[in-house]
Amino acid sequence: MSLIVQKFGGSSVANAERVFNVADIVTSKYKEGNDLIVVVSAQGDTTDDLIAKAKEINPDASKREMDMLLTAGEQMSASLLAMAIEKLGFPVVSLLGWQAGFVTSSAYGNARIKRVVPDRIRKELDKKNIVVVTGFQGLNRYDDMTTLGRGGSDTSAVAIAAVMHADLCQIYTDVEGVFTADPRKVPGAKKLSTISYDEMLELATLGAQVLNNRSVEMAKKYNIELEVLSSLSRVPGTIVKEETKVEKMLISGVAKDENIARISIIGVPDKPGLAFKIFSKLSAKNINVDIILQSVGRNGTKDISFTVGQDNLKAAIEMLNPYAESLGASSVVYDENVAKVSIVGAGMESHPGVAAEMFEAMFEANINIQMISTSEIKISVLIAAEDADKAVTAVHNKFFAEAMKA
Amino acid sequence: MSLIVQKFGGSSVANAERVFNVADIVTSKYKEGNDLIVVVSAQGDTTDDLIAKAKEINPDASKREMDMLLTAGEQMSASLLAMAIEKLGFPVVSLLGWQAGFVTSSAYGNARIKRVVPDRIRKELDKKNIVVVTGFQGLNRYDDMTTLGRGGSDTSAVAIAAVMHADLCQIYTDVEGVFTADPRKVPGAKKLSTISYDEMLELATLGAQVLNNRSVEMAKKYNIELEVLSSLSRVPGTIVKEETKVEKMLISGVAKDENIARISIIGVPDKPGLAFKIFSKLSAKNINVDIILQSVGRNGTKDISFTVGQDNLKAAIEMLNPYAESLGASSVVYDENVAKVSIVGAGMESHPGVAAEMFEAMFEANINIQMISTSEIKISVLIAAEDADKAVTAVHNKFFAEAMKA
Repeated sequence: MSLIVQKFGGSSVANAERVFNVADIVTSKYKEGNDLIVVVSAQGDTTDDLIAKAKEINPDASKREMDMLLTAGEQMSASLLAMAIEKLGFPVVSLLGWQAGFVTSSAYGNARIKRVVPDRIRKELDKKNIVVVTGFQGLNRYDDMTTLGRGGSDTSAVAIAAVMHADLCQIYTDVEGVFTADPRKVPGAKKLSTISYDEMLELATLGAQVLNNRSVEMAKKYNIELEVLSSLSRVPGTIVKEETKVEKMLISGVAKDENIARISIIGVPDKPGLAFKIFSKLSAKNINVDIILQSVGRNGTKDISFTVGQDNLKAAIEMLNPYAESLGASSVVYDENVAKVSIVGAGMESHPGVAAEMFEAMFEANINIQMISTSEIKISVLIAAEDADKAVTAVHNKFFAEAMKA
Repeated sequence: MSLIVQKFGGSSVANAERVFNVADIVTSKYKEGNDLIVVVSAQGDTTDDLIAKAKEINPDASKREMDMLLTAGEQMSASLLAMAIEKLGFPVVSLLGWQAGFVTSSAYGNARIKRVVPDRIRKELDKKNIVVVTGFQGLNRYDDMTTLGRGGSDTSAVAIAAVMHADLCQIYTDVEGVFTADPRKVPGAKKLSTISYDEMLELATLGAQVLNNRSVEMAKKYNIELEVLSSLSRVPGTIVKEETKVEKMLISGVAKDENIARISIIGVPDKPGLAFKIFSKLSAKNINVDIILQSVGRNGTKDISFTVGQDNLKAAIEMLNPYAESLGASSVVYDENVAKVSIVGAGMESHPGVAAEMFEAMFEANINIQMISTSEIKISVLIAAEDADKAVTAVHNKFFAEAMKA
């Protein structure tokens, strides 16, 4: 008998038929004698529909009221799932985030889970109830509803798994697991049977929309084994866990991120501290900077280029235009037609030739590289957006040719 | 500076435009320097839509999960109203039933307010916030969401008004107040400027869907002055308050109830205690019996007739068929094509001629009376359903001819 946490995303409970599909997955595990905690997101487009309703009334609504509105989404899906489980004849209870003991920071719209006090969950499990919990939400110290930000239901599931010492945490989604590249785009992309936390983190950061980043960080911290799998196909997914020497793969995947823009500040006076000042300013505005490239100085000036998320582009440019002028730079230019292609693999730490192989694949595909960034287990290149899919396929073929033959 | 409680029903907040209309009503009172507590129902058809969603999944869903689902309705409307008030530039906070301190009995789907602990409301009023509260809901002793049953938002508003010693409790709805008869059906029906709690209670019981009964009972108990008015027309409504001698009207209104059925048990042995047994049985099944008529015994048997709500008819007949046989009665018959027409007025206590006048009106309109029931301030007659509108008009003309001329 095990304690299993299962998390189902919005598409897994999008309509009555899907809700019953989930109820069937849950109860089949319960029938085997397991304790079940089921974390559920809002149905299908509910969250987007609610956001649209709010925007119609007040595009600048406070985040507190937005959270009050949005938390109703999981409340509805959790109770409907509980009703489906009742219909199948099993004991069940649905709990809101606050009833399940989720205490969060007070940052509305993007709260962090501070702790989980699972007294009520324990009581319900003792009564042999299947416990359905609303993901994505909690209560802050003012006794107000908060949301964890997009993808937060994954984090809810991992947090509950950690605090309850669950034997397994299954994240059900609309893909069958973690693939070496996006299977809809790259023919021959293969599902990984396992991947390490660090590799998963890099992939998530790089735009592979499988698991929410915070949830992987938390799983790593508390050593919770995750399984990413599909609620529709009923085949084993990908296990995310601590890496072992034996399993260390050279490359575990290729990812692409098109939500990115390049900004260049041209003709910055070549004085110490200016780069620091610029990036401090951006950081103070909560604008995350990714790849950074600084040209070698000439004529006493240099160019500083970096990438930001496209959603931050407008704010960054508005801030930089007057600021760059005040620093004595000549101009600020930007390009939205860029994409970042990355390879991730715990094995590359000990294989220095990986970067060269990646650049070779790009050269063979006649793709120009604009910027490069590397970490111990990741290599990213910035290229023109129209080359992105071609680049992913070329790099994937380079590293997974053998696997694809298998 | 006064403390005003305002309650808005679902039709008052049915869409974005109506939400802003309500925000305008609320903030215009706030601008005058008043403290505002605003109780809101779910938008338009939200509750019915949610019930339909639940029925699709499980028509026999537990009431606990139904309440979990339905309470999301007011949560959405409360936050949207708060956003509209923010948009108009006023400080506001929305609170769920439990945040506002509504503690209820544990009867899901039909809970009673046990107490209101308004600490949070007080705190928000101290901060000069307009406080929007979800009506219709609370938390029971198990820390689970409950609903108060249909019309429960009125009760929420009156309860808050009572515990906060509000100066005024305004119930905004889609009619302009309490009328002497249904103004959509009876030409010349007039809006009352005041009505007593008792008269309002009788009218509510008799099918005038203006105010929820429990809310009037509570207003009477705590002596809360209510104003019933329309959110759309901005004209004074009807004040519901303790009657005063001066204002005692002979007749305050004519009401009709078509959700009614007559059941007759034919040939009941004329022995003591049988009627008691029958009505105890019905009561045990939560079936409310209204008008009762017992024929004078002949040949050692008698006939017992009574009315029930149409929604209870099936359950009543299923129970009575075998039971009447066991008592030795010959048959159970029923008629759904009946209606109850009633006149209500605190003044009739001291005017014995009122009943005769009502019967005269029926006679003149050639309407046959099947059953009669009277209380201190009410006379009801059971007639054929097809005569109902004609009867209301006839009775209304009889008693309000002078007022209509005015």
